[in-house]
Amino acid sequence: MQRVVKRSFSLEAYTLEGGATIPVTLGYETYGTLNEQKNNVILVCHYFSANSHAAGKYSPDDSLPGWWDGLIGPGKAVDTDKYFVICTDNLCNVQAKNPLVITTGPKSINPETGRSYGMTFPAFTFRDMAGIQYELMKQLDIRHLVAVMGPSAGGMIALHWAVQYPTMMDHVIGVNTAAQNPIMTSFNVLQHAMRTIKLDSNWNNGEYSEQQEPLEGLHLAIQMMNINAFTASYQESAYPRDSKEAAPYACIETMTSYECALYDKIAINIPLIDANHWLYTARATMMQDVSRGFDSLEEALSRIQARVLMIPCEQDLLQPPEYSQKVVDILKKQGKEADLHMIRSDKGHMAGVLEPHLFENEVKAWLKAGVQIGSN
Amino acid sequence: MQRVVKRSFSLEAYTLEGGATIPVTLGYETYGTLNEQKNNVILVCHYFSANSHAAGKYSPDDSLPGWWDGLIGPGKAVDTDKYFVICTDNLCNVQAKNPLVITTGPKSINPETGRSYGMTFPAFTFRDMAGIQYELMKQLDIRHLVAVMGPSAGGMIALHWAVQYPTMMDHVIGVNTAAQNPIMTSFNVLQHAMRTIKLDSNWNNGEYSEQQEPLEGLHLAIQMMNINAFTASYQESAYPRDSKEAAPYACIETMTSYECALYDKIAINIPLIDANHWLYTARATMMQDVSRGFDSLEEALSRIQARVLMIPCEQDLLQPPEYSQKVVDILKKQGKEADLHMIRSDKGHMAGVLEPHLFENEVKAWLKAGVQIGSN
Repeated sequence: MQRVVKRSFSLEAYTLEGGATIPVTLGYETYGTLNEQKNNVILVCHYFSANSHAAGKYSPDDSLPGWWDGLIGPGKAVDTDKYFVICTDNLCNVQAKNPLVITTGPKSINPETGRSYGMTFPAFTFRDMAGIQYELMKQLDIRHLVAVMGPSAGGMIALHWAVQYPTMMDHVIGVNTAAQNPIMTSFNVLQHAMRTIKLDSNWNNGEYSEQQEPLEGLHLAIQMMNINAFTASYQESAYPRDSKEAAPYACIETMTSYECALYDKIAINIPLIDANHWLYTARATMMQDVSRGFDSLEEALSRIQARVLMIPCEQDLLQPPEYSQKVVDILKKQGKEADLHMIRSDKGHMAGVLEPHLFENEVKAWLKAGVQIGSN
Repeated sequence: MQRVVKRSFSLEAYTLEGGATIPVTLGYETYGTLNEQKNNVILVCHYFSANSHAAGKYSPDDSLPGWWDGLIGPGKAVDTDKYFVICTDNLCNVQAKNPLVITTGPKSINPETGRSYGMTFPAFTFRDMAGIQYELMKQLDIRHLVAVMGPSAGGMIALHWAVQYPTMMDHVIGVNTAAQNPIMTSFNVLQHAMRTIKLDSNWNNGEYSEQQEPLEGLHLAIQMMNINAFTASYQESAYPRDSKEAAPYACIETMTSYECALYDKIAINIPLIDANHWLYTARATMMQDVSRGFDSLEEALSRIQARVLMIPCEQDLLQPPEYSQKVVDILKKQGKEADLHMIRSDKGHMAGVLEPHLFENEVKAWLKAGVQIGSN
C-alpha cells in the first residue's frame, strides 16, 4: 500500500465565476512519480462528500485507504507505476472539520474582517474548481495532462476542464456525472437538503457557533443525499421493515427499527462536516452547467478536443445515464472520439465510488488507446 | 356533470390499530343511485393529498370536478348509471383547513380536554381507515360491495379491505399502490418530509397557532412529495434551466428561475393544508403493511377472496411496479384471480390520478368480468 502525504497550495487572489476575488488554499495529494518531461500526470477530482485522499494510506494502521484506491495504485487501472496522479480538495469541502482536509470556504477567516466568512463567502462553481486546479498545474510546471477524471462532482469538474482548457489533456473520464445537473436532483436532494439545513434554528443565517451547530438539519440533508445515492432495492435490503414491532403503530413520534438503523449510520459522518460548506457544495452541484457562457450545450462541447469516456450506472438516481448519453451523442455528432460504458449495480450512484471493478478495465483501455504519453 | 353534496357520518367510539379509542366524524360523497338490493356499491378511497370529492361538481361554476372524474360518472369506466359510488374523507385528511373536508385528526377538539388534540392524537393506519369505512357500510345497511378501489393510499386502504373483510367485495383495484410501503419512499419522501416540518421552529411540537404555522417546513414537505410524484423527465421539461441567468451564480441564496417557478406552484396548495394532519397521513403511509399481525405477506394475502387488479406505472418513483407485481405473483401462486396492467407515463405516480384514460378500459373490463352484481 502506497504511503501518502497531504500537501497544500495557495493562490493569493482567484476571481470566481460569480465575480468575487478571494485568496485560496487547498490541500492535495499525489500518487506515483512525476516523470522528467512532466507529462505523465492524471488529475483525479473528488466527489461531493469526499476529499483529496483518493488512494493509499497515510499510515499502515489506517482502517481504509483513499476513496478510489480500487482504481488508483501500482498495476491498477490508473497505474501509479506509470502515471503521476494528483487529487485536490475542493473549495468549500464539506469535511471542513476533518484535520486532514485543507479547504477555503465559509468556515475560513476572511482576511478583510478577521472573522469567518459564513454566508458572505461567494458562491463557487465546478468551473472555478477546474480553474483553480489549472493554477496548481502552472505552479507545478505541468503543461499537459494525460487525463482528467472523477466520479459525480469530480466528473463535472473534469468536463469543465475539457471545455475550458481543451488542449490541456488527452483523455477525460466521467463516472456517474453530467454536463448539466438533472433538475430532479437539483430539487430532490440539493435544494431540499439546503432548505432543511436552513430550517434548523441553530443554523442562524450561517452564524452558528461550534457549540450550537445545525446538526439535525445537517443530518437530514446528508441522509437525503445518502438515500438517493443508492437505490430502492438497496434500501429495501439494507433497512428491512420489521412487521412485528408495535410501538411505532401507537405513536407517530416513535421511530421504526429501520429508521433508527439509518439514523445511526448517517450520524457517524456528522462530526467532520460543516453545514455551511455543505450548503455551498450543494449549490455548486445544483448549478453545474458547462454550457454557461455559450449559446448551447453543443457549442460548449464543440470546444472539447480530449477523448471523452462517460461511465453511467443504469440504476443511478442522482445522475441518470441519459445525461451521460447526451454528452456522448453530441460529441460523436461533432466527429469527436467519445464513448459510453454502462455499468449496472443496486448501489446506484455510489457504484461509481464503491465498485470500480465494474469499470476498471474500460478505464485502463481508454487511457491506453488513442494519444500516448508524450505525444502532444 | 353530476351535482354532488358532502355528507358526513360519525362513530361514537372507534378503537384504532394502535389501541386508542376516539370518536370519529368523516365526510363522504356519493355518485349514482343505490339500488334496492343495495348491492351495486363501489367504494373509492382517496390518495394522500386528496379528499372525498372524487367526482362531479358541487356547482356548475366549479372550475374543476372531483379528482377521479375521468373514471367515475355516467357511462364512464366506473359507471354511475349502474354503480353507486361512495368516497369518504380519511382520518387526519391533510386538507383540514378546506371547509369542504370533514375529518377527525390533530386539529379536532379532544372531547376529554376541550382543546385540539395536537400531537396527542393517536397514530392511525390505513387498516383503521378500512375499518371505519366498514362501519359506515353497516350504518348504510350495505352488506356487500362490488369493488373497493383507489390510487396510491386509496389502493392501500383497498388492499386492507381485501385482507380484513375478504367476503365483503367482488373486486379490488389498486392503482400505483403497495401492500407494504417501499422503504425508499418511507425515507425519501415521508420521513424526510416529516422531519422537515418538525424542524420548522413554528411547528413548536405541534402546538402552533393559526397566526404562526410551520409554513416553510410544510411547503418543503409538500414539494418533496410533489417532486417524487412525477418523474425526472417531467421535471426537466416542466422546470427548465435558464443557462443565461447570472445572479444565482454570485450568491447561493438567490433562487434560480426554475426554483421560483416550483416554489410558487407548491405555495398554491398551502392555505388548505394543516401541518400536523400532513404528519399523521405521512406516518400512516410509511407504516402501510397489510401483513401486520400475520406471519408473512403471503399469509395475509391468502385471506383475499376478491379478484385483484393492480395497475402500476412503469415510471412511478413512489410506488414502483415491483410492489404491485409482488402482490399479483403471490395471489396467482395461491390460485387467486389476479392481474397486473402496466401503464407508462412521464407523470409517474400522478398518472394514476391525472391520466385515467391510460387504464379506464382495464377497469371497466375488470368490473364486468368474473362475479356480477347480485351474485353473492
